[in-house]
Amino acid sequence: MPLCTLQFQPSGAVASVEVGSLLHLAAAGAGVAELHLPCGGRASCGRCLLEVVSGEFHQEAVGAAEGALRRAGFVLACQTRALSDMVLRVPDPGVASLRVVTETHLLLDEAALPEPGETTPPVSAVMLQVPPATVETGYGDLERLALALAPWRGGPLTEGLRCSLSLLRRIPELLRADDGRVTALVADEGDAVRLVDLLPGADPTAHLGAACDLGTTTVALHLVDLASGEILATRSAYNRQASQGADVITRIDYARKPGHLEELRQLALTTINGLLAQACEAAGRELGRIHCFTMAGNTTMVHLLLGLPPSHIREAPYVPVTNGPPTLTARDVGLLGHPEARVLFAPGVGSYVGGDISAGLLATRAARSDEGVFLFMDIGTNGEIALGTDDWMVTCACSAGPAFEGSGIRCGMRATEGAIERVSLSPDGETVTYDVVGNGRPCGICGSGLVSLLGELLCRGIVDRGGHLLPESGCSRVVAAGATLGFLVEGSGNTASGADLVLTEPDIENLIRSKAAIYAGCDLLLEKVGLTWESVASVVIAGGFGRFLDVERAILLGLLPDLPLSRFHYVGNSSLAGAYLMLLSGEMRREVVRLAAGMTYVDLGSEPGYMDRYVGALFLPHTDLGRFPTVASLGWWPQTTSPPRVVRSRTIHQDTRNT
Amino acid sequence: MPLCTLQFQPSGAVASVEVGSLLHLAAAGAGVAELHLPCGGRASCGRCLLEVVSGEFHQEAVGAAEGALRRAGFVLACQTRALSDMVLRVPDPGVASLRVVTETHLLLDEAALPEPGETTPPVSAVMLQVPPATVETGYGDLERLALALAPWRGGPLTEGLRCSLSLLRRIPELLRADDGRVTALVADEGDAVRLVDLLPGADPTAHLGAACDLGTTTVALHLVDLASGEILATRSAYNRQASQGADVITRIDYARKPGHLEELRQLALTTINGLLAQACEAAGRELGRIHCFTMAGNTTMVHLLLGLPPSHIREAPYVPVTNGPPTLTARDVGLLGHPEARVLFAPGVGSYVGGDISAGLLATRAARSDEGVFLFMDIGTNGEIALGTDDWMVTCACSAGPAFEGSGIRCGMRATEGAIERVSLSPDGETVTYDVVGNGRPCGICGSGLVSLLGELLCRGIVDRGGHLLPESGCSRVVAAGATLGFLVEGSGNTASGADLVLTEPDIENLIRSKAAIYAGCDLLLEKVGLTWESVASVVIAGGFGRFLDVERAILLGLLPDLPLSRFHYVGNSSLAGAYLMLLSGEMRREVVRLAAGMTYVDLGSEPGYMDRYVGALFLPHTDLGRFPTVASLGWWPQTTSPPRVVRSRTIHQDTRNT
Repeated sequence: MPLCTLQFQPSGAVASVEVGSLLHLAAAGAGVAELHLPCGGRASCGRCLLEVVSGEFHQEAVGAAEGALRRAGFVLACQTRALSDMVLRVPDPGVASLRVVTETHLLLDEAALPEPGETTPPVSAVMLQVPPATVETGYGDLERLALALAPWRGGPLTEGLRCSLSLLRRIPELLRADDGRVTALVADEGDAVRLVDLLPGADPTAHLGAACDLGTTTVALHLVDLASGEILATRSAYNRQASQGADVITRIDYARKPGHLEELRQLALTTINGLLAQACEAAGRELGRIHCFTMAGNTTMVHLLLGLPPSHIREAPYVPVTNGPPTLTARDVGLLGHPEARVLFAPGVGSYVGGDISAGLLATRAARSDEGVFLFMDIGTNGEIALGTDDWMVTCACSAGPAFEGSGIRCGMRATEGAIERVSLSPDGETVTYDVVGNGRPCGICGSGLVSLLGELLCRGIVDRGGHLLPESGCSRVVAAGATLGFLVEGSGNTASGADLVLTEPDIENLIRSKAAIYAGCDLLLEKVGLTWESVASVVIAGGFGRFLDVERAILLGLLPDLPLSRFHYVGNSSLAGAYLMLLSGEMRREVVRLAAGMTYVDLGSEPGYMDRYVGALFLPHTDLGRFPTVASLGWWPQTTSPPRVVRSRTIHQDTRNT
Repeated sequence: MPLCTLQFQPSGAVASVEVGSLLHLAAAGAGVAELHLPCGGRASCGRCLLEVVSGEFHQEAVGAAEGALRRAGFVLACQTRALSDMVLRVPDPGVASLRVVTETHLLLDEAALPEPGETTPPVSAVMLQVPPATVETGYGDLERLALALAPWRGGPLTEGLRCSLSLLRRIPELLRADDGRVTALVADEGDAVRLVDLLPGADPTAHLGAACDLGTTTVALHLVDLASGEILATRSAYNRQASQGADVITRIDYARKPGHLEELRQLALTTINGLLAQACEAAGRELGRIHCFTMAGNTTMVHLLLGLPPSHIREAPYVPVTNGPPTLTARDVGLLGHPEARVLFAPGVGSYVGGDISAGLLATRAARSDEGVFLFMDIGTNGEIALGTDDWMVTCACSAGPAFEGSGIRCGMRATEGAIERVSLSPDGETVTYDVVGNGRPCGICGSGLVSLLGELLCRGIVDRGGHLLPESGCSRVVAAGATLGFLVEGSGNTASGADLVLTEPDIENLIRSKAAIYAGCDLLLEKVGLTWESVASVVIAGGFGRFLDVERAILLGLLPDLPLSRFHYVGNSSLAGAYLMLLSGEMRREVVRLAAGMTYVDLGSEPGYMDRYVGALFLPHTDLGRFPTVASLGWWPQTTSPPRVVRSRTIHQDTRNT
């Protein structure tokens, strides 16, 4: 067979292989260490992604590398064969957060995503040849533009063409710069049309959008070419507001004092604008070409971004200023981008079920069962739950706390570089093996790692069902941690920070409170509509755990119900994925409004049964083992040194729907 | 009969008269000199207006004091009988401009003017009781407002409620200030609704609008209560832009230099904002309660107000930036008023037929013949002409110059205090009698006075048909004026300025050029559509001549065609009246768009026949006397010392439609 040369960026490592070789084998031969194949090369885990810079290739299967990732030029190394010399880029471990975010697309509803060229974004770029002026018609420049837009609109613009005064002033010059050839950036406004911007000539680079997930802890965004739907860059960062409070309640209280609401607003803007600038720089595009934004965030975050007083969210009857802010401009909001760029918000349901949930539901339609009831859980600082079918939905929120995002946990961290994302223990608990995002030394443990670790501790008998560490287990890693006990995950000599990585009993209590709040919320919501857990056909889990969620261990802990594994789908950041769909499709924008309007909110705080359920769930997995028959049947309660059978079967990734 | 006491403000003059006495007789008895009854007390001239401050009265007929004037508390002194003690105010001669403007309403189409309480302004004030918030619905403040607005809207606000971010921030506070009672200022935006402002409580003073005529020379506006339609105050002033050029062409040229366009914009704003402040102060209302504006102006004036580059108006193919600017906000434009107030523009037809003409046509429907063709002439610095029926219209513009507004004439002035508005000469021309606006010493001569004077000079044989003063007439008032001749109207001892008032031969040439331009335009337009002057059923004349126009003398000069007097209607400032209608009625706003869209523009500059017609009209009344058979039949050509019969019949006022 002839040979070809594969170069792997950024290391520059080179492999000379036979034409037709699988890329992951070539990468291994070249010493590229960053590629993992936890699924064993079955195209299902989506972790061996490579970006094709140049060269010919053949994909055996596309598997988990679907949708936007495929469009962005990513392939699965385990499924792709080189047909020529190639240059390939290994996703930068320094921007692990990018990978966290892009993975959400693996669950995007492909049918909902318009084909390139058939997108219907909030602002369209229309290339026009504007007819010349004549004395006879007397038409002005704006009127001629409106006439030229009629074919795009499918008829005359009877309500005229709306336009800012500053743009109107520049129209004569812009229209004459290239003999009437212009690119008009236009937005539909009901029965009217708004001219958002006008560029001389036919400008295919005119047309960018940004989809943004505005989380309490994390802000993430996509920079998108609106014509093709291609994601040009993705960036995420901590929400800088976190410096003034980890959760929404703390921030609402903080915002009461004079000047503080504006301070929080500026912190949100600094966060988002920083990401926008980074994304544009990475994509080599101008900020001023961003002509629309879609924002999905919880109700409080949207209030703080817009400077809307949030105090009534916190006081009965818990009323936001609005669940669905009207369309605003980038200038109004303070976002970088074209000043007249349209800013659209995913509509929320109420003070504690925001646009992030509507957007999440929008994005996860494919994961929801067509037949039967689905349960959608967005496990973040607030845990939001939606239950229903396409015909009806109830929703509630519970204060889960940020534990599963790695916050409020001494060794916790976000799922970025340096985060331990998966842990396994030897039967005696003495040997700890783990995966670190970016493959460097660990800095801390992210949500998926915490679920993994606590599950291991439980089934190794090092933690009891009450969440207490058991020195009597004989494991030497159970150590004193101040006035309490802790489990030493990694010693200071091997960590990035130079400090011990210890999971303490208070950390475990935090995790148990979080999972109890969520489980109790789901349980109550099911009862409210007269259903049982068994009747749930599909459980869709969104949240900031990381790149995957070990569903079996999550069941073991009682975070998830004891149902067949095939019913679970982990979707990561579904809010961002929903915002992305809203950016590309008018149908999706109508659908998200329909979804939000169709949800009935249940206030858990006013439900007498909630507290009992919460207390019942403060055990691992639950006070009532009858609720977890599979776990109970393992028979190693209260403790055992041999791992239960369930742990041996493979970890469920987000791609369970493909298996 | 019992007696009653009538007090006349501002002089304080008092009359004790029998109950049932006519006010004008009482006023004469009390020595009130300001009341004129040129129609002889027949309720037709509208010049004996009195404002009723207090007291009971009975109106025999309302005659010319129709519509808005009647609502503003004005009565005709010649038609009103006192039934009790009364306090009456004689309109202040110091604000003669007010009277100039208010008279336009005498020609308003009453059928087009909604009844009080049935107005449909661009922004409506809706008193609401917003339902309280509940946990169950989860509705935000904005959503509850939208719900409360559904009955006003006649159904749910499916497209939501648009709102500025700054207002959105204040909604929680405003909604709770008076337990959910609010006054919402809302604008229809096609299929959506915009919340322009929100006031706590039920606030009937919430709701003001301003209708503005933006003329090249004069700016005039009404401050209007939008619920009742009542005109609260009217103000007018010179357009301060006049300091940088008397006509649109000069100003367009001026605007080419850097910074000059902005300078002109600021001058327009200073003019309008000064009038707004005066009007609000006079009415005791706050500027911030002005929630909408309707603007009618010629195309160039609108460009200069908005800072739109006007240069293409001046160069073939004469294209404005727009004939119909989109709705803007007061903040955008720079107008005093609520920052979010809607600013609507009357749509124009082209660079030289602007929104002032559309508005004028809108306002003068009642004056236009229901049967047959009408000719609408707006005689200002530009003369605009529209010809047609309700089914078709052609329109053109001619550069008339500002002579009939009193500009470009040595002794000319606007029709304000001190202007001679009517002149008569003794047969030998030695004795000059005149009426002065405000009854003080004359400062100059306004358009109506110039028509009157030149007509007198012609028929007394002091001016020949070529516009030359004739020393051989023997009239001692024909004097040297520099290198030319002039007619001494009043000597320096009797003028306000202390200077002679002289009409010079160059002034007469200016007037002749103006009237020739207009007549030639009308003539050509008629020919273009295959009609003759005789086929015109109704001639509607608008312009800044003053409070009336002596139609017979205008025919004598050849400014107007030789048609039966009953076909003429002088309507004064029809543009302002049209803007007023647009402010009160949605139907009128749709109608003005229909009118503008229905007009076909004819460019006189490109018509070869125009110049011949213009030259032919440079005689008094015309080179071709056959066109003016009535005038020709007077038989005193080339000159005569006895006044022709036509002069003896009464002056035609704007109220000819009532006679």
